Amino acid sequence: MFAKSPLAPETFPEIPAIAGVRVAGMAVGLKESGRRDLFVAELAKGSTIAGLLTRSACPSAPVDWCRRGLSGGRARAIVVNSGNANAFTGKAGDRTVTHTVSEAARLFKCPKKEVFVASTGVIGVPVGQDYISRQLPRLHQALSPNGWAEASQAIMTTDTFPKVAVRRARIGDTEVTLAGIAKGSGMIAPDMATMLSFVFTDAAIPAKVLQALLRRAGDRSFNCITVDSDTSTSDTLLLAATGQAKHPAVKSASGKLIAGFKEALESLLVDLATQVVKDGEGAQKFVTIDVKGAATDAAARRIGLAIGNSPLVKTAIAGGDANWGRIVMAVGKAGEKADRDRLSISFGGIAITRRGKRVPDYDESKVEQHLRGKSIDVAVDVGVGKGAARVWTCDLTHGYIEINADYRT
Amino acid sequence: MFAKSPLAPETFPEIPAIAGVRVAGMAVGLKESGRRDLFVAELAKGSTIAGLLTRSACPSAPVDWCRRGLSGGRARAIVVNSGNANAFTGKAGDRTVTHTVSEAARLFKCPKKEVFVASTGVIGVPVGQDYISRQLPRLHQALSPNGWAEASQAIMTTDTFPKVAVRRARIGDTEVTLAGIAKGSGMIAPDMATMLSFVFTDAAIPAKVLQALLRRAGDRSFNCITVDSDTSTSDTLLLAATGQAKHPAVKSASGKLIAGFKEALESLLVDLATQVVKDGEGAQKFVTIDVKGAATDAAARRIGLAIGNSPLVKTAIAGGDANWGRIVMAVGKAGEKADRDRLSISFGGIAITRRGKRVPDYDESKVEQHLRGKSIDVAVDVGVGKGAARVWTCDLTHGYIEINADYRT
Repeated sequence: MFAKSPLAPETFPEIPAIAGVRVAGMAVGLKESGRRDLFVAELAKGSTIAGLLTRSACPSAPVDWCRRGLSGGRARAIVVNSGNANAFTGKAGDRTVTHTVSEAARLFKCPKKEVFVASTGVIGVPVGQDYISRQLPRLHQALSPNGWAEASQAIMTTDTFPKVAVRRARIGDTEVTLAGIAKGSGMIAPDMATMLSFVFTDAAIPAKVLQALLRRAGDRSFNCITVDSDTSTSDTLLLAATGQAKHPAVKSASGKLIAGFKEALESLLVDLATQVVKDGEGAQKFVTIDVKGAATDAAARRIGLAIGNSPLVKTAIAGGDANWGRIVMAVGKAGEKADRDRLSISFGGIAITRRGKRVPDYDESKVEQHLRGKSIDVAVDVGVGKGAARVWTCDLTHGYIEINADYRT
Repeated sequence: MFAKSPLAPETFPEIPAIAGVRVAGMAVGLKESGRRDLFVAELAKGSTIAGLLTRSACPSAPVDWCRRGLSGGRARAIVVNSGNANAFTGKAGDRTVTHTVSEAARLFKCPKKEVFVASTGVIGVPVGQDYISRQLPRLHQALSPNGWAEASQAIMTTDTFPKVAVRRARIGDTEVTLAGIAKGSGMIAPDMATMLSFVFTDAAIPAKVLQALLRRAGDRSFNCITVDSDTSTSDTLLLAATGQAKHPAVKSASGKLIAGFKEALESLLVDLATQVVKDGEGAQKFVTIDVKGAATDAAARRIGLAIGNSPLVKTAIAGGDANWGRIVMAVGKAGEKADRDRLSISFGGIAITRRGKRVPDYDESKVEQHLRGKSIDVAVDVGVGKGAARVWTCDLTHGYIEINADYRT
């Protein structure tokens, strides 16, 4: 496989046991490399679930299944394989899901609709209908509150490091834990940006409230990242709450009681989402784009993504070229209101243009120095309103071409 | 500069003299390389003009000027420089345009609004306000009905070959000529795809009719190409008709009288637009994408562009990888109606999927053989309606990264 991304975090948190969650990750032969490729999570009785799924018009069979299941809001098991996306596999794909779900329901003694599935890997190659279901008893046996390292590896595809994050929060006087895993690392774009991510908490939160919290946090994290503007057929983010922690009843997604959890969830998802970007295929530089002065927050996000998706911006950053004219271009093409004659641009906090003109004492060498780093900051004020957003991306390098010009062989 | 694109046409037509048009192309020092960088066209009295301009919210000063001038529909001169886009240059940029236009109006003895200007090159660096105007007398002196080779070179930037095309058509019993030049070759995406293009004819066509003809042909040519999804601040396509040919009066953009001209214009623009794609930065393969079965023609074009803009599709083609799952992904992300279970995909006429399933006797080696060629055909039927479109793009290669990671130095 490919060398570890130079942007990989130096240390990773260890995911602690979360009351009501047991996990396992194993190799079952879906990946030709023989690496781990099947992940199962067991959730305690009474667990609630929320999810965000790809908006692709050609979603995978597992995505279709999850969309139906989320309306029930309850979950007892999550089964995820890598190595094969089970996408564009027609009726055969549906049969694979049915067999997997039936076997999991039997093992976990729950209704089928409380089993959630996700798949990632090659598109268009059917998996044998009972290939995954036959492995489940083995994973069921191996379930452990401490199986997170194996779990995070089992969902990887072209990822060069496993993505994990942990947060703590208080609901009333009770400390709850949030922990999640994610995988990238190509075909990453809103909506939903990327990929697969599974987040677990021991908090007790009704499904509707959980969904509202996830939607909000997702819009500020996974829906603000892009690697290559390509939206996957399989994007799935699930958040399960086991309800094992004892705290005052949560009835709303707003208010003081849930404020700490809300903040921790957003922080956790931003952590995972930016790890996905840092492992973007071929990424050498991590880019944070702050847009303000847009007509609305949504407009700011679209402008940020136009910058973050622009191959010309991304190649310039890869080359350390302070070619800020390409930022002007990208703002212009975003399809949102912007005032060329009030546009301010800075790189690494160094002002380049202010209100539509290059600053008089602009010193390009300072910007070039910033561009030699691994973490690049771009800030843009488009000068028409109060909308703001932050978007994350990576540079576009030879590595991306190498990885993707011959992905399957 | 870079080596000539392997997709360059083997031969180029020679542009003949067109009654009522004289052109010149010279080096005036805007390009550091010392190559030709200023092009002037003189149009006979009574010439009409139509144009398509970038939809960027941050257009260049010349684009602003042309937008106003097109409402008049008359033209006597076109002045185009390469080496500097005069974009994001604020009031200084406007002054450069004013000086250029004033001097041209003096030389050609016409109202200022009959002078059209365009600029291409680096964004954000002001040109001295009279830098171009001072060169104009020299170009005015050099005008010739046969200066097309110099003209086509003077508008090039990262282009590796000049783009020219010629067509003949009949209006009534009279033969008229159409000839055009264009430049790419990065920052190429609708709307308007690319770049600069200038087309001339000796036909006599009222400005309103000319604009309708150009809009239609542009939608089927330059607005159907993409290299990198990045829309330039400077995109300008102008079509001038000198009215020197004697033929029955054209009063409408439809009907038998204009049918031949219409067809010739579309064919000419497709020729120029596909030359731009064939010279796409780093292009090694020319890709034609046919979409049918979409809800509308516009939906088909958006699906085609989603495929044509996808870095994952383009890198797979670069690598000769028959990764058709990425076509499924791109159809899914286009935001248009598509039926996954009726989706048919073929490469080079070889069916891969039919109605949502891989064809039973699918032989990938045949597709791989097709992908080893320089001209790749992708056909998709999305299975929901009768909308169809054809879109052109190129592959995404290491060459694109090399050219763009350090464009300015």
